[in-house]
Amino acid sequence: MATKVIDEVVEKGKRARAAAAKLAAASSETKDRALLAMAEALLVRQDEIQAANAKDVAAARERGMTGALVDRLLLNPKRIADMAQGLRAVALLPDPVGEVITGWRRPNGLEIRKVRVPLGVVAIIYESRPDVTVDAAALCLKAGNAVVLRGGSEAIHSNVLLARIIAATAVTAGLPEGSVEILETTDREAARQLMRLNEFIDVLIPRGGEGLIRSVIENASVPVIETGVGNCHTYVDDSADLDMAEKIVINAKCQRPGVCNAMETLLVHAAVAPDFLPRVAHRLEAEGVELRGCERARALVPTMKPAAEEDWKTEYLALILAVKVVDGVAAAIDHINRYGTRHSEAIVTRDRDRARAFTEAVDAACVYVNASTRFTDGGQFGLGAEIGISTQKLHARGPMGLAELTSYKYIVEGSGQVRG
Amino acid sequence: MATKVIDEVVEKGKRARAAAAKLAAASSETKDRALLAMAEALLVRQDEIQAANAKDVAAARERGMTGALVDRLLLNPKRIADMAQGLRAVALLPDPVGEVITGWRRPNGLEIRKVRVPLGVVAIIYESRPDVTVDAAALCLKAGNAVVLRGGSEAIHSNVLLARIIAATAVTAGLPEGSVEILETTDREAARQLMRLNEFIDVLIPRGGEGLIRSVIENASVPVIETGVGNCHTYVDDSADLDMAEKIVINAKCQRPGVCNAMETLLVHAAVAPDFLPRVAHRLEAEGVELRGCERARALVPTMKPAAEEDWKTEYLALILAVKVVDGVAAAIDHINRYGTRHSEAIVTRDRDRARAFTEAVDAACVYVNASTRFTDGGQFGLGAEIGISTQKLHARGPMGLAELTSYKYIVEGSGQVRG
Repeated sequence: MATKVIDEVVEKGKRARAAAAKLAAASSETKDRALLAMAEALLVRQDEIQAANAKDVAAARERGMTGALVDRLLLNPKRIADMAQGLRAVALLPDPVGEVITGWRRPNGLEIRKVRVPLGVVAIIYESRPDVTVDAAALCLKAGNAVVLRGGSEAIHSNVLLARIIAATAVTAGLPEGSVEILETTDREAARQLMRLNEFIDVLIPRGGEGLIRSVIENASVPVIETGVGNCHTYVDDSADLDMAEKIVINAKCQRPGVCNAMETLLVHAAVAPDFLPRVAHRLEAEGVELRGCERARALVPTMKPAAEEDWKTEYLALILAVKVVDGVAAAIDHINRYGTRHSEAIVTRDRDRARAFTEAVDAACVYVNASTRFTDGGQFGLGAEIGISTQKLHARGPMGLAELTSYKYIVEGSGQVRG
Repeated sequence: MATKVIDEVVEKGKRARAAAAKLAAASSETKDRALLAMAEALLVRQDEIQAANAKDVAAARERGMTGALVDRLLLNPKRIADMAQGLRAVALLPDPVGEVITGWRRPNGLEIRKVRVPLGVVAIIYESRPDVTVDAAALCLKAGNAVVLRGGSEAIHSNVLLARIIAATAVTAGLPEGSVEILETTDREAARQLMRLNEFIDVLIPRGGEGLIRSVIENASVPVIETGVGNCHTYVDDSADLDMAEKIVINAKCQRPGVCNAMETLLVHAAVAPDFLPRVAHRLEAEGVELRGCERARALVPTMKPAAEEDWKTEYLALILAVKVVDGVAAAIDHINRYGTRHSEAIVTRDRDRARAFTEAVDAACVYVNASTRFTDGGQFGLGAEIGISTQKLHARGPMGLAELTSYKYIVEGSGQVRG
């Protein structure tokens, strides 16, 4: 078994590497034609997709999976149409490959150009939602990369069929064989093997929960882009417009609590806490949010449960909010830099100096002044699409679009220059 | 012992992390003043440095180390003056931190700026040459990063003293305590610990031989920038100006054979091999180069030894050159993409289409037309300085200067925007 698993991983890695060399030279027209053909193919074959998906859903129900998790798995005609629409949207984006990022001439006459090229082979390890199969493959292909997919076992039938449809359509449209590969085994050893396939994989992007991301960071020897975990804060300064602050806080916590850019801890300046906390607590509780406060917060809002040390560290991804009263912007910054995950952090203030102090000192991918953290998103940033949100500092930080799925090479042209 | 080692690594990582938060906000003036003061301090304390260095040199001789390797270790007044000069040169470079890389306004009025910030804490694991201690620390500090150094055991006395002088001078000049940390233990467990210190280290850069780099890639869980190994090729096309080709080949092989951008394999188009190979072989042999050729090359130059498969893969770092006759640019590209290490590759040609085919299809950090591969260097590229040559595609590729020692953050300013 183990040998067979390794054979599959190596074989697919090798095929992807061979495809990547050709894909790097594929024209924008060929890539876009392939993406549009994939959209068509998903719609034409939607009955087949739903039948494969029904197997995953049935298996999930058998294992006693609950309603919301089963819903994430489900592919209905609306969701298949959405995937097709996603493919068309990626086809419409400008091709990042070939851009001359910068260039200059050296005193010795050498002409140096820094040119955007694909990363090569991108591996994606993801969980649960089968639409990631289509979405991730589309973005990788558009940026000229071959992709090796490894989805979760709970969606294996859906993922494998979607990847096969996309891979076959890619070839028909003129892209090389091996441009889209998916691991069909659900053996954990296969994922581990993929994480160490330095010969064939240029970059590995995990998409999923904290457990998956932790496992990838611990085990991978290929370069990784860490994504996702967001313990995000909003700090309401005593100079804030409190109506604005209330609107931002409600939005950051309640508009979609299960995602990484939702707020998990509210920090409030002590001077406005007596005014602000009771009113915002009332609104939050009306939205069904459970509040867990520090002692000073609980003195103002007695319905709050007490917050433990663990609460400051937790990404709830649910209608729960930790609340802390702080003595000013410096204390807010300290708290955020200590407990935050460097994802998205916001200050609400009318004070220019405090806004500057906050944006300079807070160590996070996206730092907001007077706006909701919910905007940390490739689409909201105007990047057109998103492969994930990076929370590391190497390569890319924050929302990653097509440009973040590329590297560069230096092309140096001379007339016989040698080094003295 | 093991516990003590881990304590030292964690303690120094923690101190560096605390320093990084303050360093990110240090003014260019403070950083430059610190670098100039360090240059002074090295000169003032050169007797002490030479005394510490003498211990390393004596220990190396005792272990039977040979002349060239001992020479790499040696710090004499000239080399100490060079290190001081290096520090002054870094002080003169523009500060990369704070640059607004790009920025735009969204339809909803959000103003997004992408601003260059330090990486945070950079760890460097390096071998042999003690001047890397000074060089690497200077570049990291200038880019606003704290640095944790881990040098080789053979230069431990020199490295520790140099790092202490720099660290103390940094503090006197106004930079935070912990800006420069060095592991004083030579225990291998300490290096392994450093590679997995994700809580405190943002990026790890190995500088040294293939064994060190391989060990870091295998063992690190912190993000790594792979540097250095260069199995570089020069392809001489049948359309080449053969005088130019000869000059480039001699330079790429002989000017400094022990470095990563030196040529290791020469590829020659079959149509010009009978003309070109005997004359260039004669010149190379006169320079003391041992030639190892394919059968077709040996038929033209009988003094060549036969090349084995292993030769195509080898970075000799010595006066040895593998030579292969190929049937054209396509065969040259295939050979390079198969055996190369994606470092630096050159074509010598007068044919525009072949130059384009080569620069597009060769997968390497730096691809040259009619110039020596020896130009792959931060100084030669005009980056002002260099922390290493990246051979991976993530984050940075090719020569890495100050900008490559930075990340970015998004600062998003609004007027109460929430997501609908």
